[in-house]
Amino acid sequence: MSGTTLDDYTDLYAQRVHGMKASEIRALFSVANRPEVVSLAGGSPYTAALPLDAIGEMVAELIQREGAPALNYCVGQGEAALREQICAVMAEEGVDASVGASPDDVVVTTGSQQALDLVARVFLDPGDVVLAEAPSYVGALGVFQAAEADVVHVQMDDDGLVPEALEEAIAAVAASGRRAKFLYTVPAFHNPAGVTLAEERRERILEICQRHHLLVLEDNPYGLLGFEEQPPAPLRSRARDGVLYLGTFSKTFAAGIRLGWILAPHAVRDKIVMASEASILCPPTFNQRIATRYFTTMPWREQLKVFRELYRERRDATLAALTDFMPDGVRWTHPGGGFYVWLTLPEALDSKAMMPRAINARVAYVPGTGFYADGSGTSHLRLSYCFPPPERLREGVRRLGHVIEEELSLRSTFGATGSAGAPRRVAGDVPPGIA
Amino acid sequence: MSGTTLDDYTDLYAQRVHGMKASEIRALFSVANRPEVVSLAGGSPYTAALPLDAIGEMVAELIQREGAPALNYCVGQGEAALREQICAVMAEEGVDASVGASPDDVVVTTGSQQALDLVARVFLDPGDVVLAEAPSYVGALGVFQAAEADVVHVQMDDDGLVPEALEEAIAAVAASGRRAKFLYTVPAFHNPAGVTLAEERRERILEICQRHHLLVLEDNPYGLLGFEEQPPAPLRSRARDGVLYLGTFSKTFAAGIRLGWILAPHAVRDKIVMASEASILCPPTFNQRIATRYFTTMPWREQLKVFRELYRERRDATLAALTDFMPDGVRWTHPGGGFYVWLTLPEALDSKAMMPRAINARVAYVPGTGFYADGSGTSHLRLSYCFPPPERLREGVRRLGHVIEEELSLRSTFGATGSAGAPRRVAGDVPPGIA
Ligand SMILES: Cc1ncc(COP(=O)(O)O)c(C=O)c1O
Ligand SMILES: Cc1ncc(COP(=O)(O)O)c(C=O)c1O
Repeated sequence: MSGTTLDDYTDLYAQRVHGMKASEIRALFSVANRPEVVSLAGGSPYTAALPLDAIGEMVAELIQREGAPALNYCVGQGEAALREQICAVMAEEGVDASVGASPDDVVVTTGSQQALDLVARVFLDPGDVVLAEAPSYVGALGVFQAAEADVVHVQMDDDGLVPEALEEAIAAVAASGRRAKFLYTVPAFHNPAGVTLAEERRERILEICQRHHLLVLEDNPYGLLGFEEQPPAPLRSRARDGVLYLGTFSKTFAAGIRLGWILAPHAVRDKIVMASEASILCPPTFNQRIATRYFTTMPWREQLKVFRELYRERRDATLAALTDFMPDGVRWTHPGGGFYVWLTLPEALDSKAMMPRAINARVAYVPGTGFYADGSGTSHLRLSYCFPPPERLREGVRRLGHVIEEELSLRSTFGATGSAGAPRRVAGDVPPGIA
Repeated sequence: MSGTTLDDYTDLYAQRVHGMKASEIRALFSVANRPEVVSLAGGSPYTAALPLDAIGEMVAELIQREGAPALNYCVGQGEAALREQICAVMAEEGVDASVGASPDDVVVTTGSQQALDLVARVFLDPGDVVLAEAPSYVGALGVFQAAEADVVHVQMDDDGLVPEALEEAIAAVAASGRRAKFLYTVPAFHNPAGVTLAEERRERILEICQRHHLLVLEDNPYGLLGFEEQPPAPLRSRARDGVLYLGTFSKTFAAGIRLGWILAPHAVRDKIVMASEASILCPPTFNQRIATRYFTTMPWREQLKVFRELYRERRDATLAALTDFMPDGVRWTHPGGGFYVWLTLPEALDSKAMMPRAINARVAYVPGTGFYADGSGTSHLRLSYCFPPPERLREGVRRLGHVIEEELSLRSTFGATGSAGAPRRVAGDVPPGIA
């Protein structure tokens, strides 16, 4: 069987593969994880704050008592006991039985990432349009791209998605003769923008979507991580129909067990289950039983308080450092919860082109272009404050401030197109990402 | 937001959803699991044979020592330490460094089911043809259907896939102006057929595929579960190129941790990783570390012997019971390993139509039609001997023998189309499955 080369078979690739490119986040993982670099790039929760000994005991007991079924297959929808606990967690945010949320309409997934993917499979044909905030979660853009859908971004401001901009985007899509299937939105503590959709806009957004027969895909990983107050009630708590609601244990418990969920209208739920069975047979039984035990026997509300306090302190350290170290002309959002701050640089700067210098200065972030499907975002970047301790965050922001200052002084010396020190194509080696 | 009904949004479904139907296996799960029914339907491994206490201790220690990273995200390809262990497991079957197998070319997946799905995403466009054995694993057919591919079945006999039939199928596809992308095959201890591809056919099959520029998708969950002897070396151990090789811990360790893998040529591996990131971000870190510890610190080869012995005993009980209780005219395969026996009924009988009577008689199996994409298979059925203990297996086969006998006598009284006692449409309530 010699004589062939490995690449001989790549001519067999599917259409959709030709657009697949490595994401920026991925290219960064390898460098950003070096110990000397302060990584403000990744969105990893601070799992060291979990009561690890107690969890270890809980899991050992679980294996002893119910190891045989826990280590075997389960039903594709996910175990009933966990779906009940999921309803208890959703109820904390007002998505409860009074608005029709029921364990029967929950599907357990491999993180909410898989829920996004399943929604794409059930609803998206190539060429369909998805409306999404500008910027949007990089993983969702990846899913929509893999589904060969077109993302049309809708403007946000400090109060989240702008209703008028949504109306305009819908009209523009219709005028171009295409069909938008749904609006993808992260209304609470947005990734990457760090903003929250204001109360007074919520009914309005729902009304617009309903009027235009658009599904709403509400992705809510951070809703329980408000630092001063809870965010306004989710869209799903205001509308039984037309909203697909995604949640995850990644940020409130443990990302490494990869469990999330979707709450969907009954008919849709059936299709989601079938798509999930074709994709993974069933979500990990063992992890489901761990989560069920955790949420039934351990003080998870107290643990949430621990997380909130921890992330609040880190956000505060980050915002204080930004005030102290950022040069004039840099702006940033003020997240009331979640993991992220969104920076806007002076127009002349390109956050992707700046990356190699930042890494050189031992600080990492995610360039803004990763969060847009249309190549925009060059003057933005995302900082995550969830993982490094406060003093590291401060040091990271200090380094970044320095890099931006140097960049600005280079620009004023060489003009907007010059980029002495590191040629522009260095940044080009970072692939254009999910965009 | 009232006034809409849930189904209002189903007009937004993607094209591929219109073909999605509930699988037979799924419809059976609910009834077959009743305690009074002997289920010969599901393929659940007998996880009670695992050293649960030792695993419990191992996991508790893992959480104590490395809980924080274990409960966090990891890289999309899967952790390096596990990929090394996977190579150690593959080497047991001859897929080792001497044929280019390397941890770098392994991608960890959510069971091998997700590996199937990722291959479909990377290679299949709607309308593409996949060649697959007749019958084929129901979960693979589900994946190919979700990818809107057409499955063309290739005949098997007691020595597995028939090379001449493969040549003919390739010619027929070409004659119809379509393009086959790959051959999907389970060469060892086939699910559902219980047969193994003979040594003397293996080079021949590879040669045919290479000559016609067809990838081989080799799915090998049962290769280490041979009862008398190891199966012939995998196709991948004979060909570096053109073979995508799938493995899983589901049958040799624990299905409930949902870990499998794909070994792919480098260029393909990159695409698989990207497709997996879009689908699930990363496989469960926690589960990966459990598997790594299990395969580095526990006597997994001895445990494999335990499983082989256990399943051998169950296969023997099943074959003996078939000899004792099956009426004349029923034939079955003689598996040398794995989980399944494939039955062929006398022509007049329809295994799907017979299902309600079987359930009534408190025995369950999977009707043959679920394992064909083209509606054939009515006179076949699959029995699994992996889960029930030997005396239950014997009882289940006894009940089934009785049902078949009654069916035969009804047929001889009422003729082939009549079906007194239970009208044919009862069987129609079991959806036509993945087919
Ligand atoms: C907005 C958003 N959605 C979904 C996810 C996916 O998370 P997971 O798959 O771990 O649930 C993330 C993770 O960062 C996120 O920020
Ligand atoms: C032939 C074959 N392939 C793949 C699978 C999927 O198994 P898993 O996803 O648990 O690895 C199975 C399970 O029964 C199987 O029999």
